[in-house]
Amino acid sequence: MQVFRYAVTTVQIMMVGAIIGLALAGVTKPAAGAEAKPAAAPPAAEIKVPGGTMDAVTAILTRRSIRNYTSRPVPEELVQLLVTAGMSAPSAFNERSTEFVVVNDPKVMAEISQTNPASMQLKRASVAIVVAGHQGKEKFPGKGYWQLDGAVAAENILVAAHAMGLGAVWTAIYPYPERIPAVQKILKLPEQVLPLCIIPLGYPAEQKVRENHFDPARLHTNTW
Amino acid sequence: MQVFRYAVTTVQIMMVGAIIGLALAGVTKPAAGAEAKPAAAPPAAEIKVPGGTMDAVTAILTRRSIRNYTSRPVPEELVQLLVTAGMSAPSAFNERSTEFVVVNDPKVMAEISQTNPASMQLKRASVAIVVAGHQGKEKFPGKGYWQLDGAVAAENILVAAHAMGLGAVWTAIYPYPERIPAVQKILKLPEQVLPLCIIPLGYPAEQKVRENHFDPARLHTNTW
Repeated sequence: MQVFRYAVTTVQIMMVGAIIGLALAGVTKPAAGAEAKPAAAPPAAEIKVPGGTMDAVTAILTRRSIRNYTSRPVPEELVQLLVTAGMSAPSAFNERSTEFVVVNDPKVMAEISQTNPASMQLKRASVAIVVAGHQGKEKFPGKGYWQLDGAVAAENILVAAHAMGLGAVWTAIYPYPERIPAVQKILKLPEQVLPLCIIPLGYPAEQKVRENHFDPARLHTNTW
Repeated sequence: MQVFRYAVTTVQIMMVGAIIGLALAGVTKPAAGAEAKPAAAPPAAEIKVPGGTMDAVTAILTRRSIRNYTSRPVPEELVQLLVTAGMSAPSAFNERSTEFVVVNDPKVMAEISQTNPASMQLKRASVAIVVAGHQGKEKFPGKGYWQLDGAVAAENILVAAHAMGLGAVWTAIYPYPERIPAVQKILKLPEQVLPLCIIPLGYPAEQKVRENHFDPARLHTNTW
């Protein structure tokens, strides 16, 4: 039933997106003299953005790990949009092995935060997304692809959340041998579905300025 | 010398960013009635965006793997901004184990494309970014952290490139046992620095519409 409800929501968001996409198109002209040209806008009907979000590069450069959240609820539409952002990440051999579990039941949240010392911030969040990899969907199991697929999906979620004005943080389940089965048990995941990380979400109760992570020592050209 | 040149460029971009950031601030107001509020804008002087880029969620949802590029050169400033985007990704234990090699020497590009059957598109690109992990910088070696750190950095680069109007694609080096030492040799990487992927970059010579990857079967709520 939940799945059907999401499907209906998708259509609704697409319609809203179509209207707002047209509005957005009018305000995203590049600054005069700018070197970078935004790519040709995709058809408005395809954009599922309920409201303008932050400029992509700005979002990537200013994202911080946010661990404190206000009690303001996160709209379900935004959570689904974040899952869609995760599903839009590339995937090895296009195998799409990543699974997403939205956790919004306070009992389940409490269970996870008790089991996992790294997820204390779950106590302060009202919703979280668990990113997991389905080993049964891997074309070449045991090579480490589900971890990479999950990581890029999780990064999309973190950046998109920040761009929407939400705070989020990657809390690791993998590669901890004690956390993986604990979370599997709570969420009733099949044995082949391994949780990579839990991303608690909420409106930030802390303000963090950008950290400039540019480090010339880690940038090389043509050779080491 | 190259490093010093980049440091100077950084300052220049920051100054341009400060000016353009102010211009951007005027055009990124959310659409009326929008649910998602953009986060508070960071100080303009911190934004290093040479020109407006695409809305973050739109960029994430519409990014595609682009393997054909025009001959139009990619400005060096944008390549450095992409590396900065990569460096802005989160990192396990903040260990910052990821290294970035910008390849723009045609000879090096040709060598890599000859060695690696997956990187044929390098022949059509004039510049590429190699994302690698430094095992010597890992706090817990052998656990798989450098791969995750590298993956999130690579995803930032892919999304940022698309948002700037560039095309890019993840071409895998890891986990191929024959590709890793081949690329290490060409780029003269230390033994502990393992290449994860090569991302060729260029202005797209192919137009791809968005693929909607939302799959309700991979979305679960509270339990499997």
